[in-house]
Amino acid sequence: MSYAMQLLDSYPRTADLDAGVLASTIDALSDCAQACTADADDDLSELDVSAMVKCIRLCLDCADICTTTVAVTSRQTEYDVGVLGPLLEACLASCVSCGNECERHAMMHEHCRVCAEACRRCERACRNLLATIA
Amino acid sequence: MSYAMQLLDSYPRTADLDAGVLASTIDALSDCAQACTADADDDLSELDVSAMVKCIRLCLDCADICTTTVAVTSRQTEYDVGVLGPLLEACLASCVSCGNECERHAMMHEHCRVCAEACRRCERACRNLLATIA
Amino acid sequence: MSYAMQLLDSYPRTADLDAGVLASTIDALSDCAQACTADADDDLSELDVSAMVKCIRLCLDCADICTTTVAVTSRQTEYDVGVLGPLLEACLASCVSCGNECERHAMMHEHCRVCAEACRRCERACRNLLATIA
Amino acid sequence: MSYAMQLLDSYPRTADLDAGVLASTIDALSDCAQACTADADDDLSELDVSAMVKCIRLCLDCADICTTTVAVTSRQTEYDVGVLGPLLEACLASCVSCGNECERHAMMHEHCRVCAEACRRCERACRNLLATIA
Repeated sequence: MSYAMQLLDSYPRTADLDAGVLASTIDALSDCAQACTADADDDLSELDVSAMVKCIRLCLDCADICTTTVAVTSRQTEYDVGVLGPLLEACLASCVSCGNECERHAMMHEHCRVCAEACRRCERACRNLLATIA
Repeated sequence: MSYAMQLLDSYPRTADLDAGVLASTIDALSDCAQACTADADDDLSELDVSAMVKCIRLCLDCADICTTTVAVTSRQTEYDVGVLGPLLEACLASCVSCGNECERHAMMHEHCRVCAEACRRCERACRNLLATIA
Repeated sequence: MSYAMQLLDSYPRTADLDAGVLASTIDALSDCAQACTADADDDLSELDVSAMVKCIRLCLDCADICTTTVAVTSRQTEYDVGVLGPLLEACLASCVSCGNECERHAMMHEHCRVCAEACRRCERACRNLLATIA
Repeated sequence: MSYAMQLLDSYPRTADLDAGVLASTIDALSDCAQACTADADDDLSELDVSAMVKCIRLCLDCADICTTTVAVTSRQTEYDVGVLGPLLEACLASCVSCGNECERHAMMHEHCRVCAEACRRCERACRNLLATIA
């Protein structure tokens, strides 16, 4: 069981969101943030780095947005759906955009294939969590 | 002139957004991120910390979201309005929510008054930038 | 296999560090960052929040430092031991300090016990990686 | 007066560090984080991006480390010199390394000249703050 799930289980108050959905979203976000940071760096080491510029930029954005979304979703105290909702929408948009670009390079670069997979999984997780707060 | 403005002026390609609007948004976001981090800590040092729990939580979220929005708005290469738009909406929502809570404590705690001011300025900056990308 | 390991395996150049040690460090850092963010929030929801002030502060620091260390260790291109070394020392110090404080509350609060475990694992991972770059 | 200084002035307890030194360090760190993020992006837009790979990598690290150091220095509650000291050393090392690389490109690229200036100012600020906690 991930730390995320264990920490949701030991939350001292009653939670507003389903712990299982939340924990799998947090894990997907955390993995996606790391994958995007690593993929931007892998891109930077490619011989033809100029072909990877768009991928680098979108990976950097996606890493930053996922990292912040890990933090906000990890907080349950004084839950504010007015902040979480738009943030999940932004994170979803970033995962779609970054996942699409990574997929374009997936046949050529294994690191982009892995990153696209992380983005798609995170995209699904954001959609699932959004569905529970609608 | 802030570093943000100088770095926008020396961007090697043609920018998609107005440099003046962008630079003042970046500066407002950066100031707001710091103010929210400091205010959460000031709240934590208050004698009656239990009265400040909601303020701490919203400040922590707002600091994280503003920090990420500084990074995304500081990048001009391969500009993606599909990511920037929703992120600015999320940042705006966070500044409104945090600014409202800080204002409730502004008469009692000077640090909350300062933080509310930083949130209001950042809220206006996000609205201005959103207006230029609509 | 974690994304971290897969992305290290598909790095286009020759890496400076052992991929296995690096991947397990990245995973431990990423888990610790999330655990510290969640534990700070769990502390904030405790009835006697004033008893948790030190724990909250150290968790917030540790979350920020681990998050940054995930990013820096995830980058292999133009590896700079002069930056990585001191950063791992800082991360180690933060995990020790936060782990000690969480342990003090572990009997009373399950979330602090879980967070202390995440900090201890991350402390060991930082020491292992430091040993390979010494 | 910056928000950082105003928020230090309204801290409810007695501070461990000199507010003037701390506020100017926080401002320098915050500016340096933004400058490094923007410079990495400017580098990414250069025609000869392969010549800028090392600069991009060091700027990304320096942005992340300065951002975290803003957060840790903005917290005064339960001040822990055992964490702050090593973190400032890591931040100093990153500013030196990034500043050196940016300076190499300063004649050719105005954005690297600006970023080098931000790194040098931040390096001095970290040294000043380190001198007060020694």
